[in-house]
Amino acid sequence: MRPSQRQPDELRPIRLTRGFTCHAEGSVLVEFGATRVLCTASVEDSVPGFLRGKGQGWLTAEYGMLPRATHTRGAREAAKGKQSGRTQEIQRLIGRSLRAVVDLSALGERQIIIDCDVLQADGGTRTASITGACVAVHDALAGLVAAGRLAHSPMREFVAAVSVGIHRGTPVLDLDYAEDSDCDTDMNVVMTEGGGLIEVQGTAEGAAFSRAELDALLDLADGGIRRLVELQHTAVRGEA
Amino acid sequence: MRPSQRQPDELRPIRLTRGFTCHAEGSVLVEFGATRVLCTASVEDSVPGFLRGKGQGWLTAEYGMLPRATHTRGAREAAKGKQSGRTQEIQRLIGRSLRAVVDLSALGERQIIIDCDVLQADGGTRTASITGACVAVHDALAGLVAAGRLAHSPMREFVAAVSVGIHRGTPVLDLDYAEDSDCDTDMNVVMTEGGGLIEVQGTAEGAAFSRAELDALLDLADGGIRRLVELQHTAVRGEA
Amino acid sequence: MRPSQRQPDELRPIRLTRGFTCHAEGSVLVEFGATRVLCTASVEDSVPGFLRGKGQGWLTAEYGMLPRATHTRGAREAAKGKQSGRTQEIQRLIGRSLRAVVDLSALGERQIIIDCDVLQADGGTRTASITGACVAVHDALAGLVAAGRLAHSPMREFVAAVSVGIHRGTPVLDLDYAEDSDCDTDMNVVMTEGGGLIEVQGTAEGAAFSRAELDALLDLADGGIRRLVELQHTAVRGEA
Amino acid sequence: MRPSQRQPDELRPIRLTRGFTCHAEGSVLVEFGATRVLCTASVEDSVPGFLRGKGQGWLTAEYGMLPRATHTRGAREAAKGKQSGRTQEIQRLIGRSLRAVVDLSALGERQIIIDCDVLQADGGTRTASITGACVAVHDALAGLVAAGRLAHSPMREFVAAVSVGIHRGTPVLDLDYAEDSDCDTDMNVVMTEGGGLIEVQGTAEGAAFSRAELDALLDLADGGIRRLVELQHTAVRGEA
Amino acid sequence: MRPSQRQPDELRPIRLTRGFTCHAEGSVLVEFGATRVLCTASVEDSVPGFLRGKGQGWLTAEYGMLPRATHTRGAREAAKGKQSGRTQEIQRLIGRSLRAVVDLSALGERQIIIDCDVLQADGGTRTASITGACVAVHDALAGLVAAGRLAHSPMREFVAAVSVGIHRGTPVLDLDYAEDSDCDTDMNVVMTEGGGLIEVQGTAEGAAFSRAELDALLDLADGGIRRLVELQHTAVRGEA
Amino acid sequence: MRPSQRQPDELRPIRLTRGFTCHAEGSVLVEFGATRVLCTASVEDSVPGFLRGKGQGWLTAEYGMLPRATHTRGAREAAKGKQSGRTQEIQRLIGRSLRAVVDLSALGERQIIIDCDVLQADGGTRTASITGACVAVHDALAGLVAAGRLAHSPMREFVAAVSVGIHRGTPVLDLDYAEDSDCDTDMNVVMTEGGGLIEVQGTAEGAAFSRAELDALLDLADGGIRRLVELQHTAVRGEA
Repeated sequence: MRPSQRQPDELRPIRLTRGFTCHAEGSVLVEFGATRVLCTASVEDSVPGFLRGKGQGWLTAEYGMLPRATHTRGAREAAKGKQSGRTQEIQRLIGRSLRAVVDLSALGERQIIIDCDVLQADGGTRTASITGACVAVHDALAGLVAAGRLAHSPMREFVAAVSVGIHRGTPVLDLDYAEDSDCDTDMNVVMTEGGGLIEVQGTAEGAAFSRAELDALLDLADGGIRRLVELQHTAVRGEA
Repeated sequence: MRPSQRQPDELRPIRLTRGFTCHAEGSVLVEFGATRVLCTASVEDSVPGFLRGKGQGWLTAEYGMLPRATHTRGAREAAKGKQSGRTQEIQRLIGRSLRAVVDLSALGERQIIIDCDVLQADGGTRTASITGACVAVHDALAGLVAAGRLAHSPMREFVAAVSVGIHRGTPVLDLDYAEDSDCDTDMNVVMTEGGGLIEVQGTAEGAAFSRAELDALLDLADGGIRRLVELQHTAVRGEA
Repeated sequence: MRPSQRQPDELRPIRLTRGFTCHAEGSVLVEFGATRVLCTASVEDSVPGFLRGKGQGWLTAEYGMLPRATHTRGAREAAKGKQSGRTQEIQRLIGRSLRAVVDLSALGERQIIIDCDVLQADGGTRTASITGACVAVHDALAGLVAAGRLAHSPMREFVAAVSVGIHRGTPVLDLDYAEDSDCDTDMNVVMTEGGGLIEVQGTAEGAAFSRAELDALLDLADGGIRRLVELQHTAVRGEA
Repeated sequence: MRPSQRQPDELRPIRLTRGFTCHAEGSVLVEFGATRVLCTASVEDSVPGFLRGKGQGWLTAEYGMLPRATHTRGAREAAKGKQSGRTQEIQRLIGRSLRAVVDLSALGERQIIIDCDVLQADGGTRTASITGACVAVHDALAGLVAAGRLAHSPMREFVAAVSVGIHRGTPVLDLDYAEDSDCDTDMNVVMTEGGGLIEVQGTAEGAAFSRAELDALLDLADGGIRRLVELQHTAVRGEA
Repeated sequence: MRPSQRQPDELRPIRLTRGFTCHAEGSVLVEFGATRVLCTASVEDSVPGFLRGKGQGWLTAEYGMLPRATHTRGAREAAKGKQSGRTQEIQRLIGRSLRAVVDLSALGERQIIIDCDVLQADGGTRTASITGACVAVHDALAGLVAAGRLAHSPMREFVAAVSVGIHRGTPVLDLDYAEDSDCDTDMNVVMTEGGGLIEVQGTAEGAAFSRAELDALLDLADGGIRRLVELQHTAVRGEA
Repeated sequence: MRPSQRQPDELRPIRLTRGFTCHAEGSVLVEFGATRVLCTASVEDSVPGFLRGKGQGWLTAEYGMLPRATHTRGAREAAKGKQSGRTQEIQRLIGRSLRAVVDLSALGERQIIIDCDVLQADGGTRTASITGACVAVHDALAGLVAAGRLAHSPMREFVAAVSVGIHRGTPVLDLDYAEDSDCDTDMNVVMTEGGGLIEVQGTAEGAAFSRAELDALLDLADGGIRRLVELQHTAVRGEA
């Protein structure tokens, strides 16, 4: 049995709260169980130097964790004066995942900046971030359309992400912190609503994993992400 | 008339939500109108080097603002690699204000670390931070007493803070962003529940201010802080 | 009795030496007793980016302390690679204080940069800095007028600053280090020659302070600053 | 046809030169075609703080690229004062990959530090680094056994890595720079000599990829890594 | 006798391998005995800001040491986030030495960036760097001439460098690490092919040195540098 | 004729003012003409980690320039967050020069920290720093003897430094800024009172220099340093 009492293929309770803060063009509080991440999407009317004058847009992401989002307090990265390697990996992953579903040339010379800030951590903060950021970006782009600044939203489809892992021999979906800490293999999968894989990152924490195990994990992730995308659509329709 | 339609001596709606996150020993979401700050108090069983072996405790504070807490996105301090002078001023102020009401020698060789992170900004983030941090520290210390690790709480009394300013010639209480941006003189006052002044920081943004204006502002602040302390007590009694 | 044997309302011996170094447009060594600060004002023919093309000037300040200005050697900030929070607070205060008495739109697209470097510290370095910087800025602006680059000096009036505090129950003026270390309440007051308050920063180091004490401190500061402004005028007339 | 004229499942010419430099306990120049990485393994008789006194060892890795290893010169990270997110991702990956095949508790309180420095880059620097570092670590551990400081080598098996990708619709093995720049999907696979997967990192650079494509890529990688491990054994036997 | 068994005026075996890496416009591996430094010269079609629009070129140098180039591993400067004072001294010296033999106004608005990266250190890395960098710069400039981008090479003559020192009372040429560590006086001399001195940097590590000793060292250096320049010419003619 | 109207072998007016500030164990204002450097020597009862427990002392130096010590304002290194390569070279030179005349094993486990801060620059700040620091260190060590903490001063002899250069074909002593900017060769010489050379650093700024020119410069420096040492002795005897 999982520490969380869930079935192997059962997600934690998921909540997507749109408009969580008032200033950002898109602002979503995403909850995967006790994991809570505030995802905002900001629209800026300029692009980074390497794209200036090329008529296309850009999308990038930053990630942070409040010092006491975790069981014991972590040092504040702003006070240490640098972001950890883990932070940089995660923010690069979020950016790549969202760029995969946005037509940057249709965005015009604009930049979408995603900020994912973890208010409370209980495992899976990067996959929750991607899932919530998708809705925040959707809302920001819808705002541009509503304001007549874009004819159509350049978002092609939704994208979501989930973690899977082999916990005590069983492949399980959407690990919480207790499961994650006691897991041999941990994999994060990012997939679009159309079933296209964007990122597959599997890591053996202890024992190596086999192709068969990899396949089982991918199956679990596939099912989980399909449900997450449904929840994103429900939220966007205003029914969440 | 104030842009906010409030009376000159009227606070914004104040909310103090205890237990907003689950890991910290004290965790309070404080709202002064649209200003929302998450204040956590973490207890660590060690003290900074300069106090080691002296049998007394320490209390310090850090402050941050989420990049999109504001109207336009601000750069993430962790990404820039340094905290601004403004951030450092504020976190030093929060630390001093709370140390003024905690008996550090009664705390033992422990450190309380306050984190104030602004989720949404609409003026007065530093005064909201102090007001919310007071309740978070109260809760963290109450937890030490409940766990039998301290006989009594070393918190002597409550402390709260409010901003006051001269807006178009009228002294007003608890400025929101619109008022703050259009204000000649801005003052932050930190006062204990017993009426003792802890900090008075008045600044002429445009024209200098007179002693009479200073007195009017202190009167307003005195009234506002007394109401804030009542709200802190209501929150702590579980009635907020 | 004060450790310094002074009357409660007595300033330390004050000296303002103009032209202390030869390259800066304004260069003043200010001494408040054993506290010695070299204040220079540099004129640059450009403004920071946020003001470019707006036809107005800017004034900013930097502050530093030589490592062995103090009783025990402090780490050199350049070697540590960052300025402390205290340094940043002080340089922001100096800049605000001087901007309050200079008409920046009359300055044209020029920038005045004040550098206050403490050669020897004995309490009150920030108030000495403001008092000395005022004369250095005066001299730099007078130079622009003398050179025909400005028709009139954009300095409206003088500004000076002093510290006051409650030492063993008695409100006293212009604290030296020995008094400052043994003081319950410490306040820095910045006031113009016309009696307008620019900054009031009162801090309870130990016990909180009352409105009555605050009033007594403001009275003392008012008298001290008036005498400092007289000394500034004497210095500028070349009689110091 | 591939730009490199290779068959889809053909590795570039691989060379592993042991003892490339003289000071390190293990020193290997690894070449995957024109990609050349110097991998050293250094043994230190102490462990990081978090492991002190626990009787076990540690292995970590650092990665760098000489500024002109690439077609156009890249900025020197030491001069910029920070390592890029890419650098940090790669060095974390190298460390995890090698830790997976070394029994850290059998290593004793020692640390192995791997340095992978790219002298010339032509795609696949991270997979070459892992493949070369494995031999360098092998040699460093063999040295400890030869010196009588360890009874047996704590390396359980070899580990190697290769990149695979979908180039113009065809799954291909071991991408060089020209292929990598023109590739929709890029995957790095780290696998042990026993066939256990350590890391699978697949990224859609352009179009998403399907499960069938993922499977084809994993098959290719499996074959490539088996050949790389053979070459590692040949090198270690001194026949390379 | 010298630890290296060499005669006092005997250089170590010197090798200059051109084209050591493929991307840089000039790329030379220089070996002074066991000291091996990779020197690349990169040509960029822009100049630093302070020279923009002045119609002249620039040449600058950066220096680094791979962490395990030395007997015991040194910290990676990129990971520490700053270059040491020693690194900065050396790279400034390399830049000045090469600028002395290149006619920067004849170079046009181009910049040559030299990178000297020490793969293996055994004393004399800065003098080997200058000697190797000269050939790398020669090759980069010859490439500009061959491509018709410059009519003539702006390199006026060659430059080389060598260390000399007083080892146990005897002046010796080209110190290796063992000699350098046991040396009272250490001097680096940079001289052009025409015999002009560019830099003389003599340092007493223990006892001070006399004018007579200085003269003896300069004589030794003169002979050594003349032989190094011959070897540079041999290498450039393709006979090395 | 020199711009300064001095004879080729004529020093600028030299002043050494002891006790310039009150807190440091040694505090000397040194003036070489318009160049003014405040040199302090601080005694600390601990040594850096690499010397702990070895029963010997250490001496190190830091150097800085006030932002407006120069004709145009230079950026403050503390604000930039790093020391320039030039600053680091100079402080390393000052430290080496003084260590050459202090018997560190006779100092005990103490550290002397020299701070040289340039108040006004007109060429030759590094040589003035060494000359002034020597007197400051002398005074600090004399204080330890006077306090009975050392039986004898561990300073073996005095050390001083001067710059020499070839100005428009003529070798000249003690260059001021105007001469230094218009000089082909610039050399700094550090020599002990006994005539032992500690450092010789000659640099061709434009044309290379010959052995004959080097000899002429060393002769000039020798004479200049002998006079500086006399002035140091005069100052120490209290006759300056």
